[in-house]
Amino acid sequence: MLGKLKAKYIQSLGQKKQRDAEGRFVAEGPKIVDDLLSSVPGMIEEIYSLPEWKSQHSIPPAVEHIEVSPNELERISQLKTPNQVLAVLRKLNEDTTPVIAGKVSLLLDTIQDPGNLGTIIRIADWFNISQIICSPDCADVYNPKVIQSSMGSIARIQVFYGDVIELLGENRNVPVYAMMLDGDDVSSFKQITEGIIIIGNESKGIQPAIAQYASKKITIPRKGGAESLNAAVATGIVLSRLV
Amino acid sequence: MLGKLKAKYIQSLGQKKQRDAEGRFVAEGPKIVDDLLSSVPGMIEEIYSLPEWKSQHSIPPAVEHIEVSPNELERISQLKTPNQVLAVLRKLNEDTTPVIAGKVSLLLDTIQDPGNLGTIIRIADWFNISQIICSPDCADVYNPKVIQSSMGSIARIQVFYGDVIELLGENRNVPVYAMMLDGDDVSSFKQITEGIIIIGNESKGIQPAIAQYASKKITIPRKGGAESLNAAVATGIVLSRLV
Repeated sequence: MLGKLKAKYIQSLGQKKQRDAEGRFVAEGPKIVDDLLSSVPGMIEEIYSLPEWKSQHSIPPAVEHIEVSPNELERISQLKTPNQVLAVLRKLNEDTTPVIAGKVSLLLDTIQDPGNLGTIIRIADWFNISQIICSPDCADVYNPKVIQSSMGSIARIQVFYGDVIELLGENRNVPVYAMMLDGDDVSSFKQITEGIIIIGNESKGIQPAIAQYASKKITIPRKGGAESLNAAVATGIVLSRLV
Repeated sequence: MLGKLKAKYIQSLGQKKQRDAEGRFVAEGPKIVDDLLSSVPGMIEEIYSLPEWKSQHSIPPAVEHIEVSPNELERISQLKTPNQVLAVLRKLNEDTTPVIAGKVSLLLDTIQDPGNLGTIIRIADWFNISQIICSPDCADVYNPKVIQSSMGSIARIQVFYGDVIELLGENRNVPVYAMMLDGDDVSSFKQITEGIIIIGNESKGIQPAIAQYASKKITIPRKGGAESLNAAVATGIVLSRLV
């Protein structure tokens, strides 16, 4: 049974302001919830599910389970087609600072589309990039659409938000690779073991204050008529070369 | 002024059945409509726009222009946020058969997500792949979401639907590259000038009846935890190596 106040609370987590205030976010659907249950069960606080889902899962004792009807699930779901289960999770500790030296990181400048951010998190996970640094105006990683399109990779990748210009200034000894229109052909690059790879906004590119830190500029040569490549696709192409 | 029947007609083009019956489809927003106006003006039948849009464009005499109010545009739009202009277009001639020999083609097996199909069309356009062959159960290329995410590339790429197994059987002398989990590392492949590159369904991969035609299997090696890569991202990575 789902109480009215609980329903309101879960709906409110659709908004960033509420997620920040509560330190909580929502993940939906069996694929993602299963993935989170097996990789970060400690982050899960509550699970709302249909009886069918419950009968196929064992839920850790610290997680509260609330059985809901299809109608109730629809009321709290952010999805067009609600899918069996919804989990409320605690946000990760945000006090830590990213360690840049000795590893490869992604730095996102103003990636505002939640679907793109989620897909980029999934790509980073595929290529074993464990941290992503976002400029403050990127989409919120706890946005339901980001969680959905990251397909559970959210549990394995650390995403930081902060002053990326300050961070670049403090790490001048780490090579910086920036995706830009006037760079060298991506196919001329070799694998790297340390570096910051910067992906910019799809229509505006990387802002000059950030781009000035680039030690190498990378371009995916255009051969046909399309004006631009999707930011997530460009990220995939660059990571497949560099990592 | 927008008549009631016209509004109903345009709304009905949101459905494949109606698009097939009428031989028409809809494209929205200044970016895509501008692109179509400059590349394939002959395909455009009607343009519905706010006065602002009209004042900045010259419309070919064969195209009917209907001025609409923001409220009227909202009524006929498929977008959450209607954007200045909507065009009704004639579908391309579908009688032609793809020519396979001597060029690189993409073959899509059961790509059902319209956003993915649109992004793949845009990637093909970037890499100058001029034709895409779709299995019949792929998303409809004239689906408004496909048109939207293809960002105008739809005007430059020929998309065919048909019996892909028959087509592969008829072109046994053309090399076939299939994206599969048990293939060779994509980084070991060189550029090609002729071939069919097969991309399969994200969760099910390529169906066996199609996969048996593969002369080479290609894999993007997984280094981290993600279970799969988005089909459009995988397409981008493969094309950036092979083309």
